[in-house]
Amino acid sequence: MKFKPLSNRVLVEAVEDVEKATKSGIVLPDTANGKQYVKGTVVAIGPGKFTDSGGQLPLSVKIGDVAIFEKYSGTEITIENNKYIVVREDEILGIE
Amino acid sequence: MKFKPLSNRVLVEAVEDVEKATKSGIVLPDTANGKQYVKGTVVAIGPGKFTDSGGQLPLSVKIGDVAIFEKYSGTEITIENNKYIVVREDEILGIE
Amino acid sequence: MKFKPLSNRVLVEAVEDVEKATKSGIVLPDTANGKQYVKGTVVAIGPGKFTDSGGQLPLSVKIGDVAIFEKYSGTEITIENNKYIVVREDEILGIE
Amino acid sequence: MKFKPLSNRVLVEAVEDVEKATKSGIVLPDTANGKQYVKGTVVAIGPGKFTDSGGQLPLSVKIGDVAIFEKYSGTEITIENNKYIVVREDEILGIE
Amino acid sequence: MKFKPLSNRVLVEAVEDVEKATKSGIVLPDTANGKQYVKGTVVAIGPGKFTDSGGQLPLSVKIGDVAIFEKYSGTEITIENNKYIVVREDEILGIE
Amino acid sequence: MKFKPLSNRVLVEAVEDVEKATKSGIVLPDTANGKQYVKGTVVAIGPGKFTDSGGQLPLSVKIGDVAIFEKYSGTEITIENNKYIVVREDEILGIE
Amino acid sequence: MKFKPLSNRVLVEAVEDVEKATKSGIVLPDTANGKQYVKGTVVAIGPGKFTDSGGQLPLSVKIGDVAIFEKYSGTEITIENNKYIVVREDEILGIE
Repeated sequence: MKFKPLSNRVLVEAVEDVEKATKSGIVLPDTANGKQYVKGTVVAIGPGKFTDSGGQLPLSVKIGDVAIFEKYSGTEITIENNKYIVVREDEILGIE
Repeated sequence: MKFKPLSNRVLVEAVEDVEKATKSGIVLPDTANGKQYVKGTVVAIGPGKFTDSGGQLPLSVKIGDVAIFEKYSGTEITIENNKYIVVREDEILGIE
Repeated sequence: MKFKPLSNRVLVEAVEDVEKATKSGIVLPDTANGKQYVKGTVVAIGPGKFTDSGGQLPLSVKIGDVAIFEKYSGTEITIENNKYIVVREDEILGIE
Repeated sequence: MKFKPLSNRVLVEAVEDVEKATKSGIVLPDTANGKQYVKGTVVAIGPGKFTDSGGQLPLSVKIGDVAIFEKYSGTEITIENNKYIVVREDEILGIE
Repeated sequence: MKFKPLSNRVLVEAVEDVEKATKSGIVLPDTANGKQYVKGTVVAIGPGKFTDSGGQLPLSVKIGDVAIFEKYSGTEITIENNKYIVVREDEILGIE
Repeated sequence: MKFKPLSNRVLVEAVEDVEKATKSGIVLPDTANGKQYVKGTVVAIGPGKFTDSGGQLPLSVKIGDVAIFEKYSGTEITIENNKYIVVREDEILGIE
Repeated sequence: MKFKPLSNRVLVEAVEDVEKATKSGIVLPDTANGKQYVKGTVVAIGPGKFTDSGGQLPLSVKIGDVAIFEKYSGTEITIENNKYIVVREDEILGIE
């Protein structure tokens, strides 16, 4: 992966679609789709956040983990025509 | 439980319904239902929050505790067709 | 009391009603009722808040104290059919 | 005084009325009455605020001081039929 | 001066009017009057702000300094029929 | 480059247009254009942010890195007729 | 310069007009004028911001530097009929 996340950020490839249109092309609101979260595989991790004293807090997640995070956290980016999401580790609820 | 909460998060299985519709199917507002909180059993706990100095504050709740937390805190997730709520420990009012 | 407050929370049994309707059933606004606070007896206290260095700040209030706190602070919970309020100690103005 | 303020709070007996109606019973807005502050005598003080390291910062005001604080700071409480105001010391502008 | 500012507050006697009405009695908006700041002479200073470790940061301004601060900072108070403004030192832009 | 960023700021030359009009001259909204981020080459970096203890946290990005940051972060400036964006390093999602 | 900025403030003399009216006297909105920043020469600097431990963080900019800062940061003041802007150093994007 040529993208290197900074700080405590993680690059995730979504396992389930972030937003899913119905067959008719209408985007369903959250309450219809029912899910408040997204599941994705971690494909790159940052070096960790700097503390005020100059140290760095290593991440708890590692490449290959399946991360679950809130639906609207993170930023979608495109790398070599694939879609990914960049999230901060503290937005990840947990891993499987 | 295959889900591992991160930081100071806790996975809870609700003992009482988060949202309860009347028989007629109408969702009652909080003031009708009267409860501002949810009760649930802790089924998984995170390793604790990192401090700035790199330490980690262990959680006070443990697996099996019945936790009481405010109604709209946390995020609902589904694991193997069961519904759970992920809450941060500091959103838990107390345990029974 | 089977409920154990977490962190710097306190379980209080209200001495005076939090919200009082008139005989006609109409809920009076604050300006009519005039009081901005609630008085209650402390029935359970938490172990104290964790500091960043991992220490814990013990509470100043103790079981049996009559606590006075702002009207809309805290969360109402029901334990064995009795109503209580869970407040953080820093929301308590003082004790009698 | 049977009321004991917590943390850095101070119990004050107002020297000047917090809100003053005209003879006609109409409450004058601030701009009419002109004052942005209240003057009161300190009748009880808290033990001071806890710091993160577990220390306690003693108050600078003492019982008997005349404190001046912003008009809408603090909470009005009634003790034995007298009205008082509970303010945090950092809301007090100065003393006379 | 019988007023003693608390913490990092400063008592200032305005050199220029905070709000100036036109002869016709109409209060001019800021954009008409053009000034975003007030100039005043420091007549009393507080002992400084407490730090978390219990120390106190002494003020940089001293009695007699002409302080310039933003127009709507501070609180107007009246002492022996004279008008003053109480501002926190960190609201003072600079001194002459 | 004669511009020297301060603190943890970075000067970036956008590789892709920040805002792109259609041929007809109509500016497309984000949802039409689809991208939430901007890609740019780092052309100058600041010395790092000061910590409270007086230290300075060096930047992780270096001149020549291709940085990806959220679409509306940073400030556009013009130097010798070229457009650049000044962003804080913590607004950069990652580098390529 | 008789004005002495406090804390981490800097006194700047604008090189380019902060707000520029068209010949017809109509003030152009930012989107018309296009610039989000102001350029100015530093004519006085403060001693630096105090830290919680009582230290002082010296400024990075010096008198004579050309500073670039966001258009609506700072406060305009008039000294001996000249207009200046007082900005905090952390609002300065960089220097030339």
